[in-house]
Amino acid sequence: MLDYSALAAVGAVIREGSFERAAHALGITASAVSQRVRGLEERLGSVLIVRGQPCVPTDMGRALCAHLDRVRLLEDDLAPALALTGAVSPLTLKVAVNADSLATWFPQAAAAFGRGAGILLDLALDDEAHTADRLRSGEVLAAVTADPEPVQGCRTILLGALPYVSCASPDFMARHFVGGVNRDTLMRAPHMQFDRRDAWQARWASEAHGVELAAPTHWIPSTHAFLDLCIAGLAWGLHPAPLAEPHLAAGRLTELPPGLRIDVKLYWTVARLHARALETLTRAVCATAAEWLDN
Amino acid sequence: MLDYSALAAVGAVIREGSFERAAHALGITASAVSQRVRGLEERLGSVLIVRGQPCVPTDMGRALCAHLDRVRLLEDDLAPALALTGAVSPLTLKVAVNADSLATWFPQAAAAFGRGAGILLDLALDDEAHTADRLRSGEVLAAVTADPEPVQGCRTILLGALPYVSCASPDFMARHFVGGVNRDTLMRAPHMQFDRRDAWQARWASEAHGVELAAPTHWIPSTHAFLDLCIAGLAWGLHPAPLAEPHLAAGRLTELPPGLRIDVKLYWTVARLHARALETLTRAVCATAAEWLDN
Repeated sequence: MLDYSALAAVGAVIREGSFERAAHALGITASAVSQRVRGLEERLGSVLIVRGQPCVPTDMGRALCAHLDRVRLLEDDLAPALALTGAVSPLTLKVAVNADSLATWFPQAAAAFGRGAGILLDLALDDEAHTADRLRSGEVLAAVTADPEPVQGCRTILLGALPYVSCASPDFMARHFVGGVNRDTLMRAPHMQFDRRDAWQARWASEAHGVELAAPTHWIPSTHAFLDLCIAGLAWGLHPAPLAEPHLAAGRLTELPPGLRIDVKLYWTVARLHARALETLTRAVCATAAEWLDN
Repeated sequence: MLDYSALAAVGAVIREGSFERAAHALGITASAVSQRVRGLEERLGSVLIVRGQPCVPTDMGRALCAHLDRVRLLEDDLAPALALTGAVSPLTLKVAVNADSLATWFPQAAAAFGRGAGILLDLALDDEAHTADRLRSGEVLAAVTADPEPVQGCRTILLGALPYVSCASPDFMARHFVGGVNRDTLMRAPHMQFDRRDAWQARWASEAHGVELAAPTHWIPSTHAFLDLCIAGLAWGLHPAPLAEPHLAAGRLTELPPGLRIDVKLYWTVARLHARALETLTRAVCATAAEWLDN
């Protein structure tokens, strides 16, 4: 059997980023944390933590932390039977979320879940290129993603579609699209991209105007800054409809003709692990998604 | 002399993340891009790009791209004299910004600069642990940061202080602080942290109540989600005052007694490079900061 008290020390150092903060969180001294971690490393014959600022896990350290998270999740289901509720430290669930969901509907689901369940959330911004790996390794237990690829050991639930609307400020329209939105003006007007994977502006230009978009690009890696900079007239771009609509209604944004909206399907990919906390979270996520997303 | 047309191809692959998108951006074929990159790699005897999804630079590739950015920046100052303005592709400035600035005052500076200068912005979210390295290597040309450490080759300008206010929803106050905000309730009430470096909640608890905070923690890596989840009653946390104030006024948030605000000083660290574009950006950043931040 693994030494779980030593493993808990490893988990705390990874979660908190340093031996000192881990000691503080566990209510023991930093030298006790260090001793437990080193002891486990010696018994396993492997380094588990790369000491640094912050401390990060080695591959084996990451695998052990993922295992620890699962053991804790299953243990949490026993707590009521063992009448341990007051004594055990609260469970933390690590979940990856794509930025646009975190900027729109996900906080409602997280709050509904977190307030009721007494379980803590450790949210990570989805990096689609790595989320599948992080799910597979158990580093995160669930993810909201636009990527429908099945992940081994997980089930994937379609949550619905988030509609995206193509917008610019009225002042930007007057400066760049006075002759209309067409191939010619679209190739010159600056647009925004969230990151290198953000192909929605290009897809919109292709579907709405048959244009293969190669225009000046601003790179803005934040959903709200994307919106703020569009309203400020820097560039045009696609925004989640729930964020754009109040600004469209108030005249701060104008929808680019022909008013084509693009639906982005969102999925909930969750570890196949029979644990109450994951089921409660899945229910909260599905219920909130049903309110916000198109089906 | 370096082969700048080949180097521009390397830069485009790094910026766009793939040979195909770089080809599209440069208006040449992917095989022409590939040939230029390979040719330069052979002449230099070094791999410059790690082929993958996305393509990323090697250390030497990164150094060459940083050099290319600086050459472009200086070249941009020549454009009016050479009457090249219409012909050259627009310049892109890569700037790191901390999340709370990007969520509050920075978009106004970015829009003022971007609309006037015809220069594109490539914003990166500040990761304090790496921003100094990225400035030193020239990967970013400037940064908004809370870190006052001088960086070699850069000058640092104090922009002012962003005040932070400690808040919870009225419903959260009733559930967790009905007996008052004190040592005892602060140790049990769940709070939020943005990431592992976010020590502001702990500092507030220490300064306001002499408490060494070790309470249940939700990890929420987005400024707006941090605020949304506080309003939804998940946890208490510190928010930039410009974001929290409308919600305090509307009664959606309550300030935790004793109403102690924490000032976070922000700095503009910018490459020592005499180039018009950087000076214009610095002026826009300083002017907007003077409007928004406390001096």
